[in-house]
Amino acid sequence: MNNFDFYNPTRILFGENRVASIDEYIPGDARVLVLYGGESARRTGTLDEVKQALGKRTVFEFGGIEPNPQFDTLMKAVELARSEQVDFLLAVGGGSVIDGTKFVAAAIPFEGDPWTILTEHGVNVRAAMPFGTVLTLPATGSEMNINSVVTNPKLHAKLAFKSPYVFPQFSVLDPTKTYTLPQRQLANGVVDAFVHIAEQYLTYPTGAMVQDRFAEGLLRTLIDLAPKIVEGKNDYDARANFMWTTTWALNGLIGAGVPQDWATHMIGHELTALYDIDHARTLAIVLPSLLRERRDVKGEKLLQFAERVWDITEGDDDARIEEAIVKTEAFFESLDISTHLSDYELGEEAIEAVVKQLEAHGMIALGEQQEITPDVSRRILQRSLKA
Amino acid sequence: MNNFDFYNPTRILFGENRVASIDEYIPGDARVLVLYGGESARRTGTLDEVKQALGKRTVFEFGGIEPNPQFDTLMKAVELARSEQVDFLLAVGGGSVIDGTKFVAAAIPFEGDPWTILTEHGVNVRAAMPFGTVLTLPATGSEMNINSVVTNPKLHAKLAFKSPYVFPQFSVLDPTKTYTLPQRQLANGVVDAFVHIAEQYLTYPTGAMVQDRFAEGLLRTLIDLAPKIVEGKNDYDARANFMWTTTWALNGLIGAGVPQDWATHMIGHELTALYDIDHARTLAIVLPSLLRERRDVKGEKLLQFAERVWDITEGDDDARIEEAIVKTEAFFESLDISTHLSDYELGEEAIEAVVKQLEAHGMIALGEQQEITPDVSRRILQRSLKA
Repeated sequence: MNNFDFYNPTRILFGENRVASIDEYIPGDARVLVLYGGESARRTGTLDEVKQALGKRTVFEFGGIEPNPQFDTLMKAVELARSEQVDFLLAVGGGSVIDGTKFVAAAIPFEGDPWTILTEHGVNVRAAMPFGTVLTLPATGSEMNINSVVTNPKLHAKLAFKSPYVFPQFSVLDPTKTYTLPQRQLANGVVDAFVHIAEQYLTYPTGAMVQDRFAEGLLRTLIDLAPKIVEGKNDYDARANFMWTTTWALNGLIGAGVPQDWATHMIGHELTALYDIDHARTLAIVLPSLLRERRDVKGEKLLQFAERVWDITEGDDDARIEEAIVKTEAFFESLDISTHLSDYELGEEAIEAVVKQLEAHGMIALGEQQEITPDVSRRILQRSLKA
Repeated sequence: MNNFDFYNPTRILFGENRVASIDEYIPGDARVLVLYGGESARRTGTLDEVKQALGKRTVFEFGGIEPNPQFDTLMKAVELARSEQVDFLLAVGGGSVIDGTKFVAAAIPFEGDPWTILTEHGVNVRAAMPFGTVLTLPATGSEMNINSVVTNPKLHAKLAFKSPYVFPQFSVLDPTKTYTLPQRQLANGVVDAFVHIAEQYLTYPTGAMVQDRFAEGLLRTLIDLAPKIVEGKNDYDARANFMWTTTWALNGLIGAGVPQDWATHMIGHELTALYDIDHARTLAIVLPSLLRERRDVKGEKLLQFAERVWDITEGDDDARIEEAIVKTEAFFESLDISTHLSDYELGEEAIEAVVKQLEAHGMIALGEQQEITPDVSRRILQRSLKA
């Protein structure tokens, strides 16, 4: 096991009817900016519930944060927060709203051009406004981590930053908030969480037994749950387990003391920035091909994955690895998430465009071994072209 | 899954040579009281390493905290800290030293009789002095939780308190610090962590899939590791995994949103208070008998335990449950930890004495169903009498 620090001070308020609890964790005299995405936050009543919990505090609203939150939009929220002297932010939404709120929180006190927060990936962040979240879409784990991804469509750029200053102070995880989600977003959430775990688990062994067992437990839970999640019935326990799984898939625990990959995400980000494909769908396109392309260096963990996650015990090493990857693809497809570029009407020219953008963004040595050069990324995408 | 709060702000500094990192997390002008147990902390060089990391800060020392830390001893540390105007505590040791330090931290600013912190189990704690820990004995999880147990030999009392004010600010987990531990303490640590997990896992099902998978992963890890731990070789990875397992066995995560038992601990505490048996050994005496006595209400989880932890799939329900309990007993015995009262030269009269103390301490409705009355405790102990 590698040396590591683990620190995660986000308070989780989990369960039905927990929105009211936010009152305890926001200063009574706070000037609160509530950030949200589309009108569903209002339509479902969650926005009203939040405002009721905020009681007599002065509340401002900022709606319209996009899926793949956009820099220009977020800068408008920064301006509003500055001009109204807001001192607490509250994100009501999924990963995009929370990621966007993290950027707003860091940008408000930032001296200099906030765009550099993204180009420098957060190392220049020295403070942030405190904020909490009310999670409505389980997927990204943003509710309990320090990561954020922001898009700038003008530059076809989707860039990540992280900073210990942007831990949410609290996050409300009420499983009933997922009841109104469309099937597509639920399926995306399952795949997003699955790939978060894979990025931290499918590398090379470092003898980290607890991290491995936890990663495997989360993957098995997702596989067991997925049919219940996407069939659209409001099964409280299924939604609760789904929510808790996505949180622990990316909050620092399973990645502590182990190598991490993240090449699937970096390649996927370029696909979203260029072709506006849902984040999770880009991951489903890239991951299986990346595992095949990198099977020599990932072999030991792929065998462990085959046995402990998919119960595959028959056949030689090659066969067991291939079966595990095929089962992973089939799992994504079972959720109506296509795994090939051609399914999205993209061909060879898209591969060259993605490779060019990876080079432009300095993504030239990706993966746990820093061996995924633009050439390797091209080969991965070529494997993803057609079924 | 039940509603729950999860909050754990302790910073973990994990790995070899991490003691030096404490410098970052203690104010530069702090007056630090270092608390430790026996002379091994000095002999092994850990105390020197800690003092070097503390640099020019003013440092006081308080040694001699007992296994099962004693109220009178700890009150001397409270007096020292008050008279020297200490403002940061640093525990160097295992669960007893850390539990003791938590009590000292809460008692220093406490108004009124500090003994009531224990009789009221911490609900009257309103503040505590900040402290960190350097863990030398993996077992209790005290390095990342809010629990503490203190003994008062005059009263034959071993009482627990908990308070959110006594989260360690940081804990250093350096696996090499376990290299000098005697085999007996390592074996105790394995059993202590095993039973911590069992108390939160072997109750009744609430559909908490993540908590169950994590508990099962930790149990399997302990079972896989135990032979390497007690054979006494300084296997870094084995010790690292052991340390990380014991921490997550009792830091709030696997117990969030699920029922918890803790009757084994409450009965065990009385055995330690009366007969000075090692804490872990009392748990090994009580747990198997408690599982047998309560198999009707714990049946579903015992079957899950049999299958997922011990790979038992043959036989009817009764046979599978009994086999899982037999394997658990055999696991404890394989670590040279005896599981029957007669092995400790205790008989019927000890059972009556324990039952009397349980009644005296109000432990009259224990377990996840509050159904373990003194009569049930008596039956549990009678099952533990002889092999």
